[in-house]
Amino acid sequence: MNRVFSGMRPTGKLHIGHLAGALTNWTRLQDDYDCYYGIVDWHALMSDYADTSRLGENCREVLLDWLGSGIDPERSSIFIQSHVVEHAELALALGMITPLGWLERCPTYKEQILNLQNKDLGTYAFLGYPVLMAADILLYRSEKVPVGEDQSAHLEITREIARRFNYFYGPIFPEPETLLTPTPKVPGTDGRKMSKSYGNSINISDELPEIWQKMRTMKTDPARERRSDPGDPDKCPVWDLHRVFNPDGGEREELASGCRSAAIGCIDCKKRLFSHVERYLAPIQERRRHYEGRPELLDEVLHHGAEKARKVARETMAAVREALGLLR
Amino acid sequence: MNRVFSGMRPTGKLHIGHLAGALTNWTRLQDDYDCYYGIVDWHALMSDYADTSRLGENCREVLLDWLGSGIDPERSSIFIQSHVVEHAELALALGMITPLGWLERCPTYKEQILNLQNKDLGTYAFLGYPVLMAADILLYRSEKVPVGEDQSAHLEITREIARRFNYFYGPIFPEPETLLTPTPKVPGTDGRKMSKSYGNSINISDELPEIWQKMRTMKTDPARERRSDPGDPDKCPVWDLHRVFNPDGGEREELASGCRSAAIGCIDCKKRLFSHVERYLAPIQERRRHYEGRPELLDEVLHHGAEKARKVARETMAAVREALGLLR
Ligand code: SF4
Ligand code: SF4
Repeated sequence: MNRVFSGMRPTGKLHIGHLAGALTNWTRLQDDYDCYYGIVDWHALMSDYADTSRLGENCREVLLDWLGSGIDPERSSIFIQSHVVEHAELALALGMITPLGWLERCPTYKEQILNLQNKDLGTYAFLGYPVLMAADILLYRSEKVPVGEDQSAHLEITREIARRFNYFYGPIFPEPETLLTPTPKVPGTDGRKMSKSYGNSINISDELPEIWQKMRTMKTDPARERRSDPGDPDKCPVWDLHRVFNPDGGEREELASGCRSAAIGCIDCKKRLFSHVERYLAPIQERRRHYEGRPELLDEVLHHGAEKARKVARETMAAVREALGLLR
Repeated sequence: MNRVFSGMRPTGKLHIGHLAGALTNWTRLQDDYDCYYGIVDWHALMSDYADTSRLGENCREVLLDWLGSGIDPERSSIFIQSHVVEHAELALALGMITPLGWLERCPTYKEQILNLQNKDLGTYAFLGYPVLMAADILLYRSEKVPVGEDQSAHLEITREIARRFNYFYGPIFPEPETLLTPTPKVPGTDGRKMSKSYGNSINISDELPEIWQKMRTMKTDPARERRSDPGDPDKCPVWDLHRVFNPDGGEREELASGCRSAAIGCIDCKKRLFSHVERYLAPIQERRRHYEGRPELLDEVLHHGAEKARKVARETMAAVREALGLLR
């Protein structure tokens, strides 16, 4: 079975955009691949080194959201990046052959420096972000890496690093290919992309009344100022959520025409959406609660996941060491 | 007992300049410190990543020269850097808080790039040379680092990295102080500084006839063209070696005045030097041969050394992880 690695930075509670975008795909991949899912805490440190007070807690929240979403610790290896020391070791090895120019010209590097101008990201580790990312993937010799449609460029530098390493030391790493996964549009309550930093998120773990509260006040088609104004679903962020979370096509058609003719109000439309999201989240939140009350179970999941990851990581590092000619 | 770390890049057989400069000091330090001596193979890879065919062999040669010189595996921890994975791990952690500017402005960085223009050193790892060096030292929370008189600037960046880490995360690392060690002048056979890259070295492991051969043809005071010309020891590289390897002050005075009055010839002078070097090297070469024929003993030394090093390294990393707030 082909191996797949994917990771997420522990930035805190995940929202329903993560669910629709990545996690649903990740759970599906478990049927066809040997999956390694890492909570990449070293990556989080790179941009948040100045305040690490929430790092551990954030890791725990992500883990709960993953388990809730159906990432299955029996089938997949779920682990914390820093628990598998080989990530750091392989990053050091890959850095030997990674030209500085590749990193300095990396579009995500420039973009992040611009986006996060309130943070001092001019550190050695942050410049090496793509090297550690390459190590994460190559450590499991993954042949496929699930990436969102908008992110396939991110994998290119990993492929280049793999190629250059293989050129110097022989065929150690497969050049991983993108496993393109659909990334539906999930706007937040203000109509912009759902994002923790915008404060517009509906979190996977939000209490249902809180979710309803957020939906009730969520932006709709701006043209529909009054109940009697007709609306256009294609211009409405609530409608984007219907597309993702409402599987009932007949109902959707009915609502869309009701919106266009002003036969229904936005609150009616949102109530329907809410009931679908409620149904969607019910098993997820239940599983999440199951784990939430059992910290020893979480420890066990992470321990077991790191063990499984380490097994593969050690094999890869043995091959890397031999290729580099390091003394045994 | 205070801990001391020092390392050497495995570039192959060591010469008598290493012996007089570093190794003699290192053996002395064993009386007063808990010593960690690392053969820093990751550092060697940084500049020699393009051809690693001799890396393992070079490590073995350095180990033999160390053991020959009297670095005692019962008292000191002798190990290969890459065998203690925590070096890579701590380097990653320290990189989080190391400003790129410190590295780009590092004088040794600029110097090396200039010196080794035939190699492409524009890699990510090479820029991070001082970060890994800081990790080597800080991993053992060394309070003193033996450095040659000409190299005390090298330690400054390690001290700065320690200070910055402590500023963010609390007092984890002592700021290591230089343990200034005398570095006598040891010229090679052509009168320039003894260095493998100049091809002017007298190696610790050279056979005695080979050493005599090298000394016999070694440069002397250029003014002494003929046997009958008077010479000046202060302008003679052979004399620099007398200063280091000839402990007999009376004999040295006698030779110096014989040189100045042309009472003795250079060959006489060199024969005396040779006999002292012979006596100096005899026990060293004997110990070296003892280990040379016993590869299983070498493995044991390295295994034992790495175990001891790892013990301290793990304690340090536990403190680092807690300070960083990484999930256990
Ligand atoms: S009825 Fe529904 S789709 Fe139409 S504007 Fe209101 S919330 Fe949006
Ligand atoms: S006699 Fe000795 S010190 Fe004088 S020039 Fe010859 S080698 Fe040098």
